Amino acid sequence: MKLQAYFTPAEVKATDLTGRVAVVIDVLRATSTMIEALANGARTIFPVATIDEAVRLGQNLDRTATLLCGERKSVRIEGFDLGNSPFEFTDDAVAGKALVMSTTNGTRAVLCAADARRALVASLLNLDAVAQAVAEDGGDVAIICAGREQRFALEDAVCAGLIAERVRRLVAQPVRRNDAAAVAVLLARRYERALLRMLRGTAAGRQLVDAGLGEDLALCADIDRHRIVPELHDREISI
Amino acid sequence: MKLQAYFTPAEVKATDLTGRVAVVIDVLRATSTMIEALANGARTIFPVATIDEAVRLGQNLDRTATLLCGERKSVRIEGFDLGNSPFEFTDDAVAGKALVMSTTNGTRAVLCAADARRALVASLLNLDAVAQAVAEDGGDVAIICAGREQRFALEDAVCAGLIAERVRRLVAQPVRRNDAAAVAVLLARRYERALLRMLRGTAAGRQLVDAGLGEDLALCADIDRHRIVPELHDREISI
Repeated sequence: MKLQAYFTPAEVKATDLTGRVAVVIDVLRATSTMIEALANGARTIFPVATIDEAVRLGQNLDRTATLLCGERKSVRIEGFDLGNSPFEFTDDAVAGKALVMSTTNGTRAVLCAADARRALVASLLNLDAVAQAVAEDGGDVAIICAGREQRFALEDAVCAGLIAERVRRLVAQPVRRNDAAAVAVLLARRYERALLRMLRGTAAGRQLVDAGLGEDLALCADIDRHRIVPELHDREISI
Repeated sequence: MKLQAYFTPAEVKATDLTGRVAVVIDVLRATSTMIEALANGARTIFPVATIDEAVRLGQNLDRTATLLCGERKSVRIEGFDLGNSPFEFTDDAVAGKALVMSTTNGTRAVLCAADARRALVASLLNLDAVAQAVAEDGGDVAIICAGREQRFALEDAVCAGLIAERVRRLVAQPVRRNDAAAVAVLLARRYERALLRMLRGTAAGRQLVDAGLGEDLALCADIDRHRIVPELHDREISI
């Protein structure tokens, strides 16, 4: 099994994904929030790149059963129903709803994975469930880190390494890793016993603390909080 | 002092470099080869992105004092005088010459650094000299890893970390690092006692061994082989 990691979507070429299982990670916070929302009963999530696209799509959907969600610079987009804090996505707020979501890094990374044979959504919240799904699939794997503003983000690399290690333990065949996947595993071992402290030290973590959203970090560090594996089908993410 | 690392040129925005000292790294092999060539008496190096550009520039220079150099897929470009193996750049071959050089990753990374206040060329061969130049300059630093085909390459990250650590030891002021620089330092500590083995394990290293160029790895791992700091001025690299 080939297991390749990419530290930003810019590192991914479309041909890298042909026939592969893609795993998309944006620990702070888009994929954590998507997993929390779907675990709390959201029916489906439409990831979109731009605010305009979110508004347009929202107009074409049943407005009473649809929520516009997302952030720019960590803050809820003006006029939108929800931001990008997992705490906002309670079952009261989201159960049975369709979410249209646009975030700075995460939703774009999910869309880039659309070229893969399958595209799974992962964060620290569903490590085990994703690793099992990947191992059961058995095909080659591309782990795509959203990164931050097209750059390396430590928290996504650590999460990628944790998934890579769990997959390796689950499959019988040898796992061949690229440079980035090998480094991700190293980082996972370095930080797995201090995930919350690691999050607080990252650029994204510091920005959230500065924006008064420090509590989000503890939720996003809550390893294996859910056993669901959201998957992208036809531009919709559901479980 | 701010010290930011970028694992690929794609992570760098032009504004990241304003007023900064950029340090460009392509351990396997472009910046190693440039340093070897200049240490062996090459007068100047013109890094160019494309083969066409190299040919055109060569035609405008004194052909008897100019060498066309570079590779695609590790192999010398057809019709060029030299490839990209540091062993080819002996004093017999290059002393007093101008080199026009185009490689897959390295020369593009150097050109991306042209927006910085200063752009220095580094590899394992001149770690100490570069760290001292950066520390003496005292300004904020952007370490740009060439990476491999727009992707993370371990050897460049390790070299970035070794430079970052040496700079930190040399400057009196605290050094603020981004996520990538912190990870680079971690990787440097992990691999600094086994650099050659690390190079052999990387994607770029394996490709060189497969192409019969395995000896290049030992030369590229020869830490502090030279005390020169090549610098880019007006699209020319010299010491």
